Amino acid sequence: VRIQSADARRNYALILAGASLEQIARTAGVGSATVRRHFPTRLALLETVSRKRIEELCGRAHELADTADSRVALLQWLSDVIASSVRSRGLAAALALEGPGSMDESTCSAALEDAGTPLLDRAIQDGVMASHVTIDDLITLMVGIVLATEHHPEPATEADRMFQLTVAGLSPQRCLDDADRATVSRE
Amino acid sequence: VRIQSADARRNYALILAGASLEQIARTAGVGSATVRRHFPTRLALLETVSRKRIEELCGRAHELADTADSRVALLQWLSDVIASSVRSRGLAAALALEGPGSMDESTCSAALEDAGTPLLDRAIQDGVMASHVTIDDLITLMVGIVLATEHHPEPATEADRMFQLTVAGLSPQRCLDDADRATVSRE
Repeated sequence: VRIQSADARRNYALILAGASLEQIARTAGVGSATVRRHFPTRLALLETVSRKRIEELCGRAHELADTADSRVALLQWLSDVIASSVRSRGLAAALALEGPGSMDESTCSAALEDAGTPLLDRAIQDGVMASHVTIDDLITLMVGIVLATEHHPEPATEADRMFQLTVAGLSPQRCLDDADRATVSRE
Repeated sequence: VRIQSADARRNYALILAGASLEQIARTAGVGSATVRRHFPTRLALLETVSRKRIEELCGRAHELADTADSRVALLQWLSDVIASSVRSRGLAAALALEGPGSMDESTCSAALEDAGTPLLDRAIQDGVMASHVTIDDLITLMVGIVLATEHHPEPATEADRMFQLTVAGLSPQRCLDDADRATVSRE
């Protein structure tokens, strides 16, 4: 059983809905013995899905490092983080329920932060991001957007709307010119 | 037993930590019969705390309506919403656990939205807020900030930092001049 693109979303949904390995096997069209050989426990399956999701986002960060416009690269990656989190919402909670042996949230956050840091650094160097913003700030804001929109009828659309507002600012008082930027940096 | 300012925070903390009416009475320095006369059930107590919190925020909105600077008024109110939510974090979850008879979340949201709408309308009229932003957007973003920072060692400080970033924008591309504003309004 390979958890891959076309089936991935359906599998996520099943896993998060608390489906048994047997139900997942039936949906994937394979025998439950095959599922069980690859994923001896439900926890192993959850962890694989979670690890795969983080790996994909880290891969995206590497790809985007080559984008000429550093602002576009960073914002595209943050948008990917939101889209991925919306798709797999409930995954972290499901892992937490499986008990203390499971892959913990801070491991995931650390991997994401490492992946996003070069994109943020480049955006700050290019002056399209205030220099006091940290990667931790960005991940926290993205997590907040996902959590606040998860019960919305259209979570992906709503999360994207909240993301656009956060990027533009609710009420940016005025543009920062170079002198202002220097002031902000000194804070 | 009056749930008022000086004792309110300690009481919130006790209630949310799952304290019994007896423990609350002991901490408040009154007999448990007195507590029980005012709040026959733990649910009644939770609902009173929750209602009081919403009333305070509605009162704040009315006070701030007189502030000359409409941007300051709106941002101050949003900041108050965050501070109040950080203090009473867990309250909504506690109410939800008490069962389906309890005051529901959408009632609270509706009251908050009604209170904030005049502040937002004035800010949009004054051109300090983009006209496509809704009060629902603002409340959703504030909820996200509170949820994303609730496990932080210093949730109030962290939530305020996230609020400031959201107001300023992660990367506002440029200032809106009057022509741009008109374009945004037409969207």
